Amino acid sequence: MSVFELTCVDKNSPARQGVLTTSHGLIQTPCFMPVGTAGAVKGITPEHLRRTGAQIILANTYHLMLRPGVETIERIGGLHKLMGWDGPILTDSGGYQVFSLSSLTKIDDDGIEFASHVDGAKFRLDAEEATRIQNRLAPDIAMCLDQCPPFGCEPGQLQQAVDRSIKWAKRCKDAHANPRQMLFAIVQGGIDLKLRKQCAEELVKMDFDGYAIGGLSVGEGHENMIKTVAHTAPLLPANKPRYLMGVGMPADIIAAVMAGIDMFDCVLPTRNGRNAYAFTMAGPLHMRNNEHISDSLPIENTCDCYTCTNFPRAAIRHFFNAGEMLGPILTSIHNLRFYQRLMNEIRQHIETGDFAQWADEQLAKAAIWNGQNQKER
Amino acid sequence: MSVFELTCVDKNSPARQGVLTTSHGLIQTPCFMPVGTAGAVKGITPEHLRRTGAQIILANTYHLMLRPGVETIERIGGLHKLMGWDGPILTDSGGYQVFSLSSLTKIDDDGIEFASHVDGAKFRLDAEEATRIQNRLAPDIAMCLDQCPPFGCEPGQLQQAVDRSIKWAKRCKDAHANPRQMLFAIVQGGIDLKLRKQCAEELVKMDFDGYAIGGLSVGEGHENMIKTVAHTAPLLPANKPRYLMGVGMPADIIAAVMAGIDMFDCVLPTRNGRNAYAFTMAGPLHMRNNEHISDSLPIENTCDCYTCTNFPRAAIRHFFNAGEMLGPILTSIHNLRFYQRLMNEIRQHIETGDFAQWADEQLAKAAIWNGQNQKER
Repeated sequence: MSVFELTCVDKNSPARQGVLTTSHGLIQTPCFMPVGTAGAVKGITPEHLRRTGAQIILANTYHLMLRPGVETIERIGGLHKLMGWDGPILTDSGGYQVFSLSSLTKIDDDGIEFASHVDGAKFRLDAEEATRIQNRLAPDIAMCLDQCPPFGCEPGQLQQAVDRSIKWAKRCKDAHANPRQMLFAIVQGGIDLKLRKQCAEELVKMDFDGYAIGGLSVGEGHENMIKTVAHTAPLLPANKPRYLMGVGMPADIIAAVMAGIDMFDCVLPTRNGRNAYAFTMAGPLHMRNNEHISDSLPIENTCDCYTCTNFPRAAIRHFFNAGEMLGPILTSIHNLRFYQRLMNEIRQHIETGDFAQWADEQLAKAAIWNGQNQKER
Repeated sequence: MSVFELTCVDKNSPARQGVLTTSHGLIQTPCFMPVGTAGAVKGITPEHLRRTGAQIILANTYHLMLRPGVETIERIGGLHKLMGWDGPILTDSGGYQVFSLSSLTKIDDDGIEFASHVDGAKFRLDAEEATRIQNRLAPDIAMCLDQCPPFGCEPGQLQQAVDRSIKWAKRCKDAHANPRQMLFAIVQGGIDLKLRKQCAEELVKMDFDGYAIGGLSVGEGHENMIKTVAHTAPLLPANKPRYLMGVGMPADIIAAVMAGIDMFDCVLPTRNGRNAYAFTMAGPLHMRNNEHISDSLPIENTCDCYTCTNFPRAAIRHFFNAGEMLGPILTSIHNLRFYQRLMNEIRQHIETGDFAQWADEQLAKAAIWNGQNQKER
């Protein structure tokens, strides 16, 4: 039985609708994964998370291996027990955060040595260790250890990162020993389309359960990102899920679905939520603003989330001003639901056959209000 | 129709079980009110609050009049809209916090002048203003403005506080103009039983909807408190609810119910929860402790709360260590449920007729473990 079934393909674009079967349930794709970095989606109980429509969540191996540690998580029965979440979970391999967060990082063809940003303790992460750790954490989907170079690095570095990512993917696959867990490989190559092709082709030969496009949304801009995705996605098998890591704003997601992507993760809904930024179909709201002082409307009239059905904008603004946790929490809940409603709508339009037209309309609108305050209610 | 009906009286003590009818629903007493100081029970969505069994919550007029202000709350439809809570709400009058939180406070027989602790703005609070404010905030139960003197003050000050509380209560009653809102008076008098008698008798003559005993749990100790409650409660009408303000630890509640109290409020479950202190029937747990590092048990095996049915102790500990909001949130949820389970049990024992005996057993146990770490699981 195939774990990924395409249920619908758009006639006018590479967009597809599918179902991914995991050890903890089914996922309708395209899907958006909220990020629970250190084992929690910040301030959001899994109960509320479920209610937003989240089907699968992400946790970061880097953070968890440092604290509380693999042994603790294993002892209590795995990541699902730590997170209080009985649905699917995906972990990244730790590679990306090692570079962005830790100090004293040394990397060679064999692996990575680094010092924890928490307490300076020394760690070593190589393909086998990253795989073993994820096998023990027991998420439903694990990621290969890859090297994600910074945007704008030297071409030689980019090639080296691709070469390492290919070699390490092979080692991850060989080390993988959890039969209830899928393993996805990560295509690197920056915005160099030749490198992306080389990397994709080598990884596809190894026959992974799914393929991610990493190393984007790192400063290259929307146009470069979509161009790279549009070039790379068709090089990946149609019958395997495609995951664009760390993406993104709603316009990024719509454009990437149009290019053939099935899975997304991003901290935006929650990080922005904690900073009083609320997504709406008519543009973002800044919940601390004086215009909301006595506004009895919800954040978004058409939104069915817990926040919008229970609280007026004035309450959210008050909570932020008063330093109440409910400010960040309620805005994050709304934003998470916003993203899930977006994915619902995407899947719906693919099903009804008018996705490409709808997507073009949305992208035109996004160009108008992207990043600006909402002008009308 | 009486708004407060006694459903059961204990044969062996003054404890009683009752039902209080409010504009937003019925309350089974004795009851415990979680505190939502600035319009939110810190970090706890009303959804989770409901699930703990909370029937009524408390908000502080002092905080709300300063921020977001009475006008804003009135404009959005009242306190229920701000708090996202459609059940009963009680507000205190603001008097207590004026003294504990604000600066530049001047008090005379007419009222109080103070400067907001938020931004230094000048305010005046007298009996009529406190009543008008609460009428406009529109909780189901409002409290009279009283003067709550510090523990250990001069006898002359205590008498003066009693005299003012009596005069202000009359003025509050005359100013009260919200027919859907009950007004409770507050008995002061420190631990001076004669003053308590004088104050209670004068307030009872004015025929309020309910009577609170204020000015306790301010440093006088459990014995003094219970002695004062046991003396004062019988002086209040049996057919009106009796509310012991700001109390308390579980042993305080049990003893006060035994003395005839129907309603309680306290920040303990939530404040302690935010500080990693978890209440259990076998004594408190300190969730940051190393003993919980890989404990896969819930905080309390017999607890049916959201936290205990979804998370092991190890997860809670991890969340605290990682600075995740879910640490304080989940522990608060457990503690709030602990308090509601306590009230359930209290009401149950009053109904089955063995409350006094059960209460004595609990109080004996409390004396043993009060404040100490749990020794066994």
